[in-house]
Amino acid sequence: MKAGLVDYAPVRGSMVIKPHGYAIWEEIQKELDKRFKETGHQNAYFPLLIPESFLKKEAEHVEGFAPEVAWVETAGSEPLEERLAIRPTSEAMICHMYSKWINGYRDLPILINQWANVMRWEKTTRPFLRTTEFLWQEGHTVHATKEEALKETLLMLEVYRDTVQDFLAVPLVYGQKSESEKFAGAVETHTIETILPDGQALQMGTSHYLGTNFAKAFDIWFQDKDETRKHPFQTSWGVSTRLIGGLVLTHGDDKGLILPPKIAPIQIVIIPIAAEKNPKVNEISLKIKEDLTKKGFKTTYDNRENLRPGFKFNDWELKGVPIRIEIGPRDLEENSCMIARRDDGSKKKIKIEEIIETCEFLKSDIQKSLFEAAKSKMENRILEGRKSEEIKEAIDSKKAIWIPWNPENKDLEAEIKEKTKATIRCLKPSGENIAQDGSKTKIKALFSRAW
Amino acid sequence: MKAGLVDYAPVRGSMVIKPHGYAIWEEIQKELDKRFKETGHQNAYFPLLIPESFLKKEAEHVEGFAPEVAWVETAGSEPLEERLAIRPTSEAMICHMYSKWINGYRDLPILINQWANVMRWEKTTRPFLRTTEFLWQEGHTVHATKEEALKETLLMLEVYRDTVQDFLAVPLVYGQKSESEKFAGAVETHTIETILPDGQALQMGTSHYLGTNFAKAFDIWFQDKDETRKHPFQTSWGVSTRLIGGLVLTHGDDKGLILPPKIAPIQIVIIPIAAEKNPKVNEISLKIKEDLTKKGFKTTYDNRENLRPGFKFNDWELKGVPIRIEIGPRDLEENSCMIARRDDGSKKKIKIEEIIETCEFLKSDIQKSLFEAAKSKMENRILEGRKSEEIKEAIDSKKAIWIPWNPENKDLEAEIKEKTKATIRCLKPSGENIAQDGSKTKIKALFSRAW
Repeated sequence: MKAGLVDYAPVRGSMVIKPHGYAIWEEIQKELDKRFKETGHQNAYFPLLIPESFLKKEAEHVEGFAPEVAWVETAGSEPLEERLAIRPTSEAMICHMYSKWINGYRDLPILINQWANVMRWEKTTRPFLRTTEFLWQEGHTVHATKEEALKETLLMLEVYRDTVQDFLAVPLVYGQKSESEKFAGAVETHTIETILPDGQALQMGTSHYLGTNFAKAFDIWFQDKDETRKHPFQTSWGVSTRLIGGLVLTHGDDKGLILPPKIAPIQIVIIPIAAEKNPKVNEISLKIKEDLTKKGFKTTYDNRENLRPGFKFNDWELKGVPIRIEIGPRDLEENSCMIARRDDGSKKKIKIEEIIETCEFLKSDIQKSLFEAAKSKMENRILEGRKSEEIKEAIDSKKAIWIPWNPENKDLEAEIKEKTKATIRCLKPSGENIAQDGSKTKIKALFSRAW
Repeated sequence: MKAGLVDYAPVRGSMVIKPHGYAIWEEIQKELDKRFKETGHQNAYFPLLIPESFLKKEAEHVEGFAPEVAWVETAGSEPLEERLAIRPTSEAMICHMYSKWINGYRDLPILINQWANVMRWEKTTRPFLRTTEFLWQEGHTVHATKEEALKETLLMLEVYRDTVQDFLAVPLVYGQKSESEKFAGAVETHTIETILPDGQALQMGTSHYLGTNFAKAFDIWFQDKDETRKHPFQTSWGVSTRLIGGLVLTHGDDKGLILPPKIAPIQIVIIPIAAEKNPKVNEISLKIKEDLTKKGFKTTYDNRENLRPGFKFNDWELKGVPIRIEIGPRDLEENSCMIARRDDGSKKKIKIEEIIETCEFLKSDIQKSLFEAAKSKMENRILEGRKSEEIKEAIDSKKAIWIPWNPENKDLEAEIKEKTKATIRCLKPSGENIAQDGSKTKIKALFSRAW
């Protein structure tokens, strides 16, 4: 709120994304959109409103989403014949259209993504982490074979994993969801999650292999090369403005936000000191800004009048700008300036001709340091356990814990959830172990509470 | 529909924007967004749902929009205490937030734009021209003085005018709306419109000077430099996916879409002829594609198998791709290829080393030719008249007509609308004339029917 990312809106559980917050979303969009297109996807746009009968076609899907739906029952001053859901996700609408568009194997694969707003009427909300309306992208693909659809599911998980770790510098755990935690209507859900400083997991993106569940429900068929009619295999995958929540909670400190350079809408702020005493301060600062901009740095020159430099320092620290350059009359005498990094607060004097080189170094070093520091902190929040009894202790000490796990044991999963409020965040393969019920297993489950 | 821009969706009056249509929207967004940012605007995002009480605060505003609103009355399985409108436009929500954000003159100007979906439950709909849901951008700015707000209103009209004429190559008439045609709640509305081949006007963008109407209704105040409390002055302005409708209707022909190069998601398609007879066809085609891509051309190589070249020609003509390159074994012998332009259908043989240069020329020449041809055709659809009696005749011959006009004469405006279904599309200053009621006037009004 103080960093100007977001404000509460006058509708329960909804938020206004203010310019600084939206600029971060634009950076995320730009990077993801580039990667979606590089992997062969195209954007499209499907309607906001979904007829109730469509939502009901896939039984598990409607069971999962119906309780959270906002309904339109009146439009243009008249009651509607059938009420319309504001999309909580778009499988129902998109699969309906796909059933019209797909005839033969030549129509496949369909690789479509949509950038859109969606709505889920949640009880407990918090800006960027869980809001009734949020912005996201949802990919919906259709393939002739199971193998191709599974490959797509994992490819998009990898696009998410790499973008979040490389660009947002947010460390992740990832893997498949348990049966009880998967997406309503999916065969498999794969997830990327981070463990936050409070020990809770934040799900940051999911990629679903839908099998033929939706194809059957929505009557999607294609004539294959062998001239038989088949249901195609589908995937869907999404990330949302929740990524901003993960970013803020991972890198923030008591002074405010810390933005990794790759995702920062402003990477460098130049602050003049006592510019009124020497007009060359303005002149040189603008020259530095121009040089940095030419080199591709997103640079701002803060020449607001009547504000002390100390106020400006705090203001840009609050907003998370990774690099600050200070320049005043005394610096000019020495042909130097001060350069400060937001992540560790360090500050040093450099020659003006060293600015570009120093900023290149800082851009890459801050990015790397933020990720490594966050990764090492996150790893300290994840314990390795052997027995399900250890879960409560882990949760009480604000930690997550890997436990050898038998994925068939849904009763114990439910029992643990009830006792500790911890859920399985993801599964991963491991060496052979003894599961909590005495059976042999090659799988571990990560338990923690979640946002 | 046939060009793959759009499909009907299963909710009354709504559409699916398919990948080719959405790619055009992305080009429009990219260009406008760049220009908005160059003129100092920032993007933000405000909630989809607006409480009914907010919509009612500005009397004219609610009167204009209430009949077209879709209402949410149930959410999360419970009836809502107050029903929520799906935004038909966001003044009510944004002005509420501005009343919280603005205190003193230092907070001004606020220059915010939003890219969003909006909904207006219209009776008669048509893809891209009038749909219940559409995508748009809406700018909402706040200024300390009337002069500044008026300047902003006209600046954004100019941004629209230049983008639509220069990028979409759609010719425009523009000017101020009459009192009866202005935006509900505005003091002045300025518009850009084109006159389509059917003689009907298509409003393609509007920029509103709101004065202090919304500031008063939403209790927005600021403390000015002179320490008095004042209402600030506001503007709002928007264009929508309707721009695509204007583009299609302006440039299309019997073979399908014709896209101006600047807005075309694919500018050049390379089609191999008899590639199976000589593997060098593929090799050279890919090399040409690479060279063109390096020069910034959006190029596709259509090497789909089992499709005849003639089929491909038609397919890409339907989609409107401005330049086509054909290359086959015989061309290779002569180190040449065929190059065809979509706008006039002409085709010529050129040397392979001339491709870049030729494409540079065609890109600019097709853009220019399309605009000039469209402009000259549009001008032929606009008559100069002297008396209001001439309006019916103009409308009957599918034309629009300028008439000397006294803007005070609302009764005659209403009478003409009733008799001819023609409305005033915009007003413009002119030399002194005698208005239809015998009074002297320096204003002309453009009458036509409208989409």
